[in-house]
Amino acid sequence: MPAGPAADPPHPLAAPLLAGERRALAKAITLAESTRPDHEREAQTLLSQVLPHAGRSVRVGLTGVPGVGKSTFIEALGVRLADAGHRVAVLAVDPSSVRTGGSIMGDKTRMPALTVHEGAFIRPSPSGGTLGGVARRTREAITLCEAAGFDVLLVETVGVGQSETQVAAMTDLFVLLTLPNAGDELQGIKRGIMELADLCVVNKADTNPAAANRAQRELSAALRLLTPHDAPWRPRALQASALTGAGLDEVWAAVEEYRSDPGRVERRRREQTGAWFEELLREAAWRKFRAGVDAERLRALRAEVLAARLTPVQGVRELMGDRKG
Amino acid sequence: MPAGPAADPPHPLAAPLLAGERRALAKAITLAESTRPDHEREAQTLLSQVLPHAGRSVRVGLTGVPGVGKSTFIEALGVRLADAGHRVAVLAVDPSSVRTGGSIMGDKTRMPALTVHEGAFIRPSPSGGTLGGVARRTREAITLCEAAGFDVLLVETVGVGQSETQVAAMTDLFVLLTLPNAGDELQGIKRGIMELADLCVVNKADTNPAAANRAQRELSAALRLLTPHDAPWRPRALQASALTGAGLDEVWAAVEEYRSDPGRVERRRREQTGAWFEELLREAAWRKFRAGVDAERLRALRAEVLAARLTPVQGVRELMGDRKG
Repeated sequence: MPAGPAADPPHPLAAPLLAGERRALAKAITLAESTRPDHEREAQTLLSQVLPHAGRSVRVGLTGVPGVGKSTFIEALGVRLADAGHRVAVLAVDPSSVRTGGSIMGDKTRMPALTVHEGAFIRPSPSGGTLGGVARRTREAITLCEAAGFDVLLVETVGVGQSETQVAAMTDLFVLLTLPNAGDELQGIKRGIMELADLCVVNKADTNPAAANRAQRELSAALRLLTPHDAPWRPRALQASALTGAGLDEVWAAVEEYRSDPGRVERRRREQTGAWFEELLREAAWRKFRAGVDAERLRALRAEVLAARLTPVQGVRELMGDRKG
Repeated sequence: MPAGPAADPPHPLAAPLLAGERRALAKAITLAESTRPDHEREAQTLLSQVLPHAGRSVRVGLTGVPGVGKSTFIEALGVRLADAGHRVAVLAVDPSSVRTGGSIMGDKTRMPALTVHEGAFIRPSPSGGTLGGVARRTREAITLCEAAGFDVLLVETVGVGQSETQVAAMTDLFVLLTLPNAGDELQGIKRGIMELADLCVVNKADTNPAAANRAQRELSAALRLLTPHDAPWRPRALQASALTGAGLDEVWAAVEEYRSDPGRVERRRREQTGAWFEELLREAAWRKFRAGVDAERLRALRAEVLAARLTPVQGVRELMGDRKG
């Protein structure tokens, strides 16, 4: 290996983290969430040291509108998996935490049984900063949880905003939770989210079996329309009830089936990592560019373009010729 | 107006173009399609001079898998509109032209009646270059057609690849054409395309009325699922037959209804122009960055990231610290 960051001395949290100590894991995530430059450097050193031990988990993204019973579903599924011997970590990407600086997602009080389970680890969404920043820190938390031996990662987000794309881009399989009265309630789902779903689950199916059947049929038809013939995985619609536990085994069986093709998961992760690297690189290039540009001039040129006094191409050329330095 | 490109002397094509001369329009589009730097500058000058006269049209994007009868549909709709006094321009974004350097899209022989109609103008897809380049030249062709007095712009693309997003981003309304046996055939539609549709039209409805009714119902249900309650426009599914002409008036009535809210169209266009400007700017910044970067080093760092020997953040930092100059 060439000399580089990996040549740094082992970070003190690395050994206890790899030994599965949850206090070390919690500290490591806090370090990765810090925006202090020295903490950021330290976190990157730690991350690169544990990277070779990460990746051995199934990463499941979950979304659904408020009221769909997301917490209850994740807790029921998580307890079932932890009881079966899995080590289950629950993470969250909550866009509201970006705006408010506070977060309700991943709140431990929402999942009382899972919180006290010795096989589980729950961490609320990082708060503050941009959505991209929150997503990055959640990606890093995934790596840290995996290095600590957690083999099931449940990453939740709410069914509004841009966070679903981010969570779908960091998980192996993306699950959309809906309600039995899909025809009415699903309309709250933002355009584009069903396209991300590898699995749709009609939750609370016990409350209205007839409506749940209808919702499942409608979702199946919609997924069929949305999926090309030659797709490597055909998204499907299932029913479940977090309350009674019905259907949870079927949901997990579908996850296992998806995972049964290791090539599929490897390809998806490789594509995700490559795309994430390029996204970070483009963002870095864009920040560097913006830092060197006259912001007043940019605003003025944009206004000229919007007023149809300059073509967009001319606006860009003027600005590129205009850069400081 | 500040001194700038708009202060150039009038381009010789500007006056005949604004007078609606189609030879001048064809020449202007050829100029805009040229990749010669002096032609590009000239085209931008011309474009900025006619920009204030552009924008007074309805821009309709159309897509559908091969076999759906796109050309026949566009011809039937176009002739109907031209007969009614509209001036109709047909443009195309064909991703295959990017790869092959040749293009079948917008081929005049596919639309014999519209080709010879005095109220119509048909232009094949620009060929060669990147999809972004093809899309940019089609945007510029839209501006030139509008400046020449064409008030209906039909922009077609095929239902595969990334070109649909580009066409949806340059039109007021995006139409997805499907076949009566939607349950089977629609699966050829790429994931994400139905999300772009403001209107779905089951074409060739006359060939199988029962299947067409079923397809319309299924599409309506899927569109309902995909559309939020508070959407400013609720996408709908219609039926038509380009062969018999049935349903074409209803399709155009839906377009007119969409257009009846001028604020909606204005907002969409303003957002499109702003997004397009930023996209061009980001691309320019990225090109500039790439030009200054050690390509070999970038490849090596990317490989380290994919092999999990560096975190993506570390890879980017290494590269940003590594830039030449």
